[in-house]
Amino acid sequence: MYLKHAVWVLVGLLATGQTWAASPGAALPHGTLVDEPFVSTVLKDNRIGLKPERAIKVFLPPGYGNSGKRYPVVYFLHNAWWSPKQMFEDGNMQRLLERGFADGVIKEFILVAADYTGPTTGSLYENSPVSGRWIDYTVDEVVPLIDRKYRTLARRESRAVVGDFFGGRGALKFAMVKADVFSVAYAMHPVATGIGDLPWSSTEIDWQRMYAAKSYGELGGLGRTQIFWAIHQAFAPNVANTHCFCNFYFEMKDGKITYNPDRAKAMQKAFLLDDTLDEAAPALRTMRGLALDWGRFDTTQAHVISNRQFSRKLEDSGVEHEAEEYRGDPWNRTWTEGGRFATRVLPFLEQHLISAD
Amino acid sequence: MYLKHAVWVLVGLLATGQTWAASPGAALPHGTLVDEPFVSTVLKDNRIGLKPERAIKVFLPPGYGNSGKRYPVVYFLHNAWWSPKQMFEDGNMQRLLERGFADGVIKEFILVAADYTGPTTGSLYENSPVSGRWIDYTVDEVVPLIDRKYRTLARRESRAVVGDFFGGRGALKFAMVKADVFSVAYAMHPVATGIGDLPWSSTEIDWQRMYAAKSYGELGGLGRTQIFWAIHQAFAPNVANTHCFCNFYFEMKDGKITYNPDRAKAMQKAFLLDDTLDEAAPALRTMRGLALDWGRFDTTQAHVISNRQFSRKLEDSGVEHEAEEYRGDPWNRTWTEGGRFATRVLPFLEQHLISAD
Amino acid sequence: MYLKHAVWVLVGLLATGQTWAASPGAALPHGTLVDEPFVSTVLKDNRIGLKPERAIKVFLPPGYGNSGKRYPVVYFLHNAWWSPKQMFEDGNMQRLLERGFADGVIKEFILVAADYTGPTTGSLYENSPVSGRWIDYTVDEVVPLIDRKYRTLARRESRAVVGDFFGGRGALKFAMVKADVFSVAYAMHPVATGIGDLPWSSTEIDWQRMYAAKSYGELGGLGRTQIFWAIHQAFAPNVANTHCFCNFYFEMKDGKITYNPDRAKAMQKAFLLDDTLDEAAPALRTMRGLALDWGRFDTTQAHVISNRQFSRKLEDSGVEHEAEEYRGDPWNRTWTEGGRFATRVLPFLEQHLISAD
Amino acid sequence: MYLKHAVWVLVGLLATGQTWAASPGAALPHGTLVDEPFVSTVLKDNRIGLKPERAIKVFLPPGYGNSGKRYPVVYFLHNAWWSPKQMFEDGNMQRLLERGFADGVIKEFILVAADYTGPTTGSLYENSPVSGRWIDYTVDEVVPLIDRKYRTLARRESRAVVGDFFGGRGALKFAMVKADVFSVAYAMHPVATGIGDLPWSSTEIDWQRMYAAKSYGELGGLGRTQIFWAIHQAFAPNVANTHCFCNFYFEMKDGKITYNPDRAKAMQKAFLLDDTLDEAAPALRTMRGLALDWGRFDTTQAHVISNRQFSRKLEDSGVEHEAEEYRGDPWNRTWTEGGRFATRVLPFLEQHLISAD
Repeated sequence: MYLKHAVWVLVGLLATGQTWAASPGAALPHGTLVDEPFVSTVLKDNRIGLKPERAIKVFLPPGYGNSGKRYPVVYFLHNAWWSPKQMFEDGNMQRLLERGFADGVIKEFILVAADYTGPTTGSLYENSPVSGRWIDYTVDEVVPLIDRKYRTLARRESRAVVGDFFGGRGALKFAMVKADVFSVAYAMHPVATGIGDLPWSSTEIDWQRMYAAKSYGELGGLGRTQIFWAIHQAFAPNVANTHCFCNFYFEMKDGKITYNPDRAKAMQKAFLLDDTLDEAAPALRTMRGLALDWGRFDTTQAHVISNRQFSRKLEDSGVEHEAEEYRGDPWNRTWTEGGRFATRVLPFLEQHLISAD
Repeated sequence: MYLKHAVWVLVGLLATGQTWAASPGAALPHGTLVDEPFVSTVLKDNRIGLKPERAIKVFLPPGYGNSGKRYPVVYFLHNAWWSPKQMFEDGNMQRLLERGFADGVIKEFILVAADYTGPTTGSLYENSPVSGRWIDYTVDEVVPLIDRKYRTLARRESRAVVGDFFGGRGALKFAMVKADVFSVAYAMHPVATGIGDLPWSSTEIDWQRMYAAKSYGELGGLGRTQIFWAIHQAFAPNVANTHCFCNFYFEMKDGKITYNPDRAKAMQKAFLLDDTLDEAAPALRTMRGLALDWGRFDTTQAHVISNRQFSRKLEDSGVEHEAEEYRGDPWNRTWTEGGRFATRVLPFLEQHLISAD
Repeated sequence: MYLKHAVWVLVGLLATGQTWAASPGAALPHGTLVDEPFVSTVLKDNRIGLKPERAIKVFLPPGYGNSGKRYPVVYFLHNAWWSPKQMFEDGNMQRLLERGFADGVIKEFILVAADYTGPTTGSLYENSPVSGRWIDYTVDEVVPLIDRKYRTLARRESRAVVGDFFGGRGALKFAMVKADVFSVAYAMHPVATGIGDLPWSSTEIDWQRMYAAKSYGELGGLGRTQIFWAIHQAFAPNVANTHCFCNFYFEMKDGKITYNPDRAKAMQKAFLLDDTLDEAAPALRTMRGLALDWGRFDTTQAHVISNRQFSRKLEDSGVEHEAEEYRGDPWNRTWTEGGRFATRVLPFLEQHLISAD
Repeated sequence: MYLKHAVWVLVGLLATGQTWAASPGAALPHGTLVDEPFVSTVLKDNRIGLKPERAIKVFLPPGYGNSGKRYPVVYFLHNAWWSPKQMFEDGNMQRLLERGFADGVIKEFILVAADYTGPTTGSLYENSPVSGRWIDYTVDEVVPLIDRKYRTLARRESRAVVGDFFGGRGALKFAMVKADVFSVAYAMHPVATGIGDLPWSSTEIDWQRMYAAKSYGELGGLGRTQIFWAIHQAFAPNVANTHCFCNFYFEMKDGKITYNPDRAKAMQKAFLLDDTLDEAAPALRTMRGLALDWGRFDTTQAHVISNRQFSRKLEDSGVEHEAEEYRGDPWNRTWTEGGRFATRVLPFLEQHLISAD
């Protein structure tokens, strides 16, 4: 039997901005967006005022209500400074999913957007005694919760993790350390996969302000300086240092700001994924599907350079993966119709995620 | 009406190497490969013994025989050192096309493989009084021939040009100078889009051997040196210089090999596509679809670097395009099932090529 | 006769921070810093309130007063946001020069710091009807003034141009278009030699603010946005457009900010030096000495990438030059003892500048 | 007292090819080149027919004979495929040294060229049970020999190690693991400091030939393939594997060549210096002087990219160093008059090496 109607024609039409004339949006079967509030025990353990109340959202596919079937689950890791609420509020994410299902690009799945918000940047997708144990929260609390409350295919073969920007880092991190839970990972424009071409002694951080500040909030408007406050709390935590609960990699010595290479190296090892890739390679080789992609025109070219090298290191490590660099910046080709999520992420999930019981 | 069977599922299955169980190959509707011998007038004009007899191949889609319809045409530009015969002899190209049609990835089209072989490298896709006017051959002879003998949609909106490696250069070149004939171009791992990071004074050419040689053949085994013989004949032709019918960009001066920057510059301007991109931008902006892609792990990294920069220049010139860099070398991800031709080129053609009368 | 005392030993001692024990600073023969106020006619022609009164400084070497000799002249082009006053106010520049003379690193010369300050960034080293004809000012006014008032060797062989950052762009620009006036050029960490890896559509400019602003000053604190105001005035001037006296390369069309590739291209051609390098190559090949250097760790990596490519293009163009990339950022290795100015620039000038009558 | 005659003037004159008019070569005081044959015990331990007889050369500076003084020693590590005999046979090296001494660029030192030749590439500057323990040979045999037979300053502060290409790798390696023996290292265009942008699965090695060959010699003419035979013997030795006494990182499995990522990683860790830089950082921070430089136009761009990143990693590790990238290829700017050895290496040695008792 051969298909008479081309899926790709439809995708093509969408991509060119042509209207959905043949199958009007009105007829698109709708899924259901469910609020799943949750109080985390894991996240109570923090020093930055992170609230344990989590506003998780679960998107159930159109057929969920009537099918009685079990579904694979895609865990979506949103970027820092973002939230599940924002993810869904303009309807675009839901529409892309519904269209993917309707067009047969991918079989139905449940999408879970756990709440990674916080008082600073939100999750950087790591376990930290200071800014939250986000990996534990996800794996020990959210996944069991979802498996308990919804008709899921509760096994790694049917669990994927997808994220963008810092969430892209998260997707790769979960693949590296939780390959027993997830078997498919797609990192959309991940960051922190490597260092790029500039040493950390040249990073544009205002250390005087870092040392003078009493909180993340005080550094508002200082861009990189502010972000590095949160990065230190996540990757160089020190609960004993009550100034910021972390060790800055520039020390204050006799009133003078001084680069400390050991601290820098330790933080790089925790933060930059390539630094632990060798150890993670055996786990990564068990993944059913692993992909990263990124836009060439990110104004922080370190992201681009690092992702290229990360792919090279995966190759060297014998890890099967895809790694596409596309024309675009981190945002302008991702969530559009015909964009990366619709034409790259969904087909990749379909290719690797097991849907059948 | 919603598709019950996902095209992408099929593509996915293929990609993972699973067998074509549900729709056995036996049942795949077959197209017809037609030999279309042709004697070129244009190509008689050469100084290297290039034969005007051309062994063109035309692949007619499965439905061609019975439909009475007119079809769009995709002109495929094979790489140097390759031929239409080799393109089709293992059956893979035909199978990928037939599957693409059968799966609905793309509507049926005619694929034309004009014969770009020759006594040296074969076509480098340029007009040269020495090694052949390949652009004229294609546009003034082959396209009219095909439109005359087959039921084509004889207009630019329904004509695409696709090529790989040197043929990828060709695809971009036709877009730059023959946008009135073709409206869609896809360059698979094109070369000669720019110079990369090394100056031409450092190119690994054995100039002593170049000057000593009496023919391309004598340089066999010398890699780059041999190729540059042909490149000079194509891009720095000089019919008056009966040694090689070209001007080498290293001169022989008093028995000494000397770099001539003016010659080098003139040849770069002819050979490297970025050097005429500004002039070509208005034409390129009229293209319905323009894409290039390339494998990151080409051992000649100049190709990779040049393609990245070519995309940046297209962006600067306001030329809409796609430019994906993928994991792989120039060959290992292209013609596989689930590879670039099947999952990137065909959908791109479907998206931009007009099939309807 | 062989030298008993090594110049390089001294330089080495300085570099390692050891004190000047053998020849105490007190004994270092001092030159004379002369204020040379000047009222420019050329600079009156501007639309931004640029004042024609120029506070030029001339540094005469220690031997000038008593020798009666004529001296070569080095014209120093300071960076934007800088001034001759600032150049000399901490005494470091004078000390480095005096030491270079005393140690025999270089024979005595006159250093001229013409005043390139202005109400916006100061000179970007170009002729503009809007922000000043700085090339004409230098060549038609300052050079004749100096030759008239001081005992100079008034010929190109004895005139060098040196500058840093935007002044480095200036040094290269003068070499490209005024090789009849200067025969030696050293660009310290020049900028705007090329575009780097990011397209101008991705440049981080706040166009809404650009269009809303009435002056450069209003854009204070906006970094790149503010600088690009001045860049437009210098390289895309339009005296008829009384908003900013320039054409922004993002147009305002029906209230929408839209990229205009033709404007972008025109401005790149004026601003980025590599875009006119082919035309300038014959002149550059007449230079007695041409050098650029730059620090690898400039946080704007486009400067680094562009300088590498600029050197490659010089090489392709057959232009003899030096091009060293060093460990450091644009500032931290330049003006130190043992830094680039003392150990690279001065010896280079000595090597190429003609001191003898 | 101020020098009347500039050393740099002389260097400058040389650089511009002007003759040594003022101080004719005839008058240049000559040093003495001494043959110092030696039979190594360490090098007997090998499986490739490496001969223990070593033809060491020692260059004594002009003043050595009459002074009675002790001198610092510079150990020069020649490139693979080279020898002490070749180093000195055209007289250039000796002339550059004698001129450096005569001009006062550097105080007199003894230069030792130990013999690193062998039946394959010669030393790659590592300890291997298969192809020789070259580090031990140098440190345990050559250095004591020299200190015993010559009037040396027998301490790390007065010992430098300098090398080019593979010898450049050697200089860095000695700094990393033998900082107790040498305190100054200058690596001229070192290789193998990192991997570059291509994975090892893409390295152009003919594995069929590697497995078929019975010796290094059989791979003559195969470029990279042949070199990798020796690299495996040095960095992936396996005395039990009598085929080549090493483990190729592509395995032969059931007659099929297969990439083995664990073997590749192990060999990278041994071969590529950046892979052990973290461990070596504390030792490197004790160096009095550490420098590397390299030509931008090496046709193996992996060398260039790796050296840039190596410098960045040194910076991150808090290791003081110089790292200049210059216009040129690995050879054309090094040994010329006015080239890197004369104007960069010698002054650097002078700056950091202790000459006084």
